Amino acid sequence: MDAVQKKAVVLLSGGLDSSTTLAIARSEGYELYALSFRYGQRHAREVEAAAGVALATGVKRHVILDIDLRSFGASALTDNIEVPKGRDVSEISKDIPVTYVPARNTIFLSFALAFAESIHARDIFIGVNAIDFSGYPDCRPEFVAAFERLANLATKAGVEGQSFTIHAPLISMAKSRIIKTGMSLGVDYSLTTTCYDPSKEGKACGSCEACLLRLQGFHEAGLKDPVEYA
Amino acid sequence: MDAVQKKAVVLLSGGLDSSTTLAIARSEGYELYALSFRYGQRHAREVEAAAGVALATGVKRHVILDIDLRSFGASALTDNIEVPKGRDVSEISKDIPVTYVPARNTIFLSFALAFAESIHARDIFIGVNAIDFSGYPDCRPEFVAAFERLANLATKAGVEGQSFTIHAPLISMAKSRIIKTGMSLGVDYSLTTTCYDPSKEGKACGSCEACLLRLQGFHEAGLKDPVEYA
Repeated sequence: MDAVQKKAVVLLSGGLDSSTTLAIARSEGYELYALSFRYGQRHAREVEAAAGVALATGVKRHVILDIDLRSFGASALTDNIEVPKGRDVSEISKDIPVTYVPARNTIFLSFALAFAESIHARDIFIGVNAIDFSGYPDCRPEFVAAFERLANLATKAGVEGQSFTIHAPLISMAKSRIIKTGMSLGVDYSLTTTCYDPSKEGKACGSCEACLLRLQGFHEAGLKDPVEYA
Repeated sequence: MDAVQKKAVVLLSGGLDSSTTLAIARSEGYELYALSFRYGQRHAREVEAAAGVALATGVKRHVILDIDLRSFGASALTDNIEVPKGRDVSEISKDIPVTYVPARNTIFLSFALAFAESIHARDIFIGVNAIDFSGYPDCRPEFVAAFERLANLATKAGVEGQSFTIHAPLISMAKSRIIKTGMSLGVDYSLTTTCYDPSKEGKACGSCEACLLRLQGFHEAGLKDPVEYA
């Protein structure tokens, strides 16, 4: 009899980091269950990208949930606050950016936990990164550790001793290392989307914080970004 | 100038416990923001009850979010698993019941946290109870404490030192004491709904675990339950 393949739930936004995380989980031998959200973000294109990446990576199942964070407001990614442009990359990460969405990763991980418990998975992957985006409180190692602890108190499986592990393999990687890792695992970065404020034709702006960090990462990795810029 | 009234986000299911919790938050002087969910439960009537209770309690704003936990399955409250009936009350609470919804309170508290941060509230109330329903892992004091810790790591407000408090005022109250407390605060229990499996006319079954615990609570409090039973 074949050994049963271990299952992992992977949070997949369709961006560079989560797509790399998905490839890492695959390389570690997990059967992949991807989870994406439509959360009222202005760039619903993310979900299309996530679907393309999920297909290309051979996920077993891709669940897309609608959750309406617009009911609460208070972020440039869900509200009509202007996305900041053209900042010096060295200035990024010093403050909590206006693109911060209250409790977003807490909400995403909570759903991932429910999904994992429902399918008897004990491993959850999230592509948070504390280096290039240290401005987000819910991208830090202490946040991930606190969520893992919560997960094991919150669930039937956790109480019964089948511990959950929250994997954040990118947490201390520079963007260039993330890109090199993904390349070595066969990630097709042309499928991914990063820009906070793409054009109507879907081209990346090249000047929002996310684009700047992505471009700098490719530059430092000595590689060319395959996505189209406006 | 008047002092600014402190805001609280209160998770409100329309049941006896959360309705009492809402009244407790009001009695402590908070401006009330209620949060309810349509989560694919078979008894969507809960949300109607929540709206009635919110109105009667004078909440400032009542947000109802749609989240689809059916995508994950695995609970009698969202799936087509039979709700257990006619168990001896003394047998309840020994096991984790089939009505357990994976990570439900984690998801609910995550949204409450997002709501709270968005409106600059620092206090979140949840009506969990570890006495009559100790079978649910996410109703225990250690779960609530772990979520509070997570909340202060996960958010901009928490990082900036404006700590969140998760209030669970019912956590160690017997059902009869919850009912007496609510009565003293003017809760209209005829507006609340508890039954896991009501009739088409909306009457409580009187024999599911939730009904049995409610009826026992009223009996022990020496009071008559004002809701109609089938």
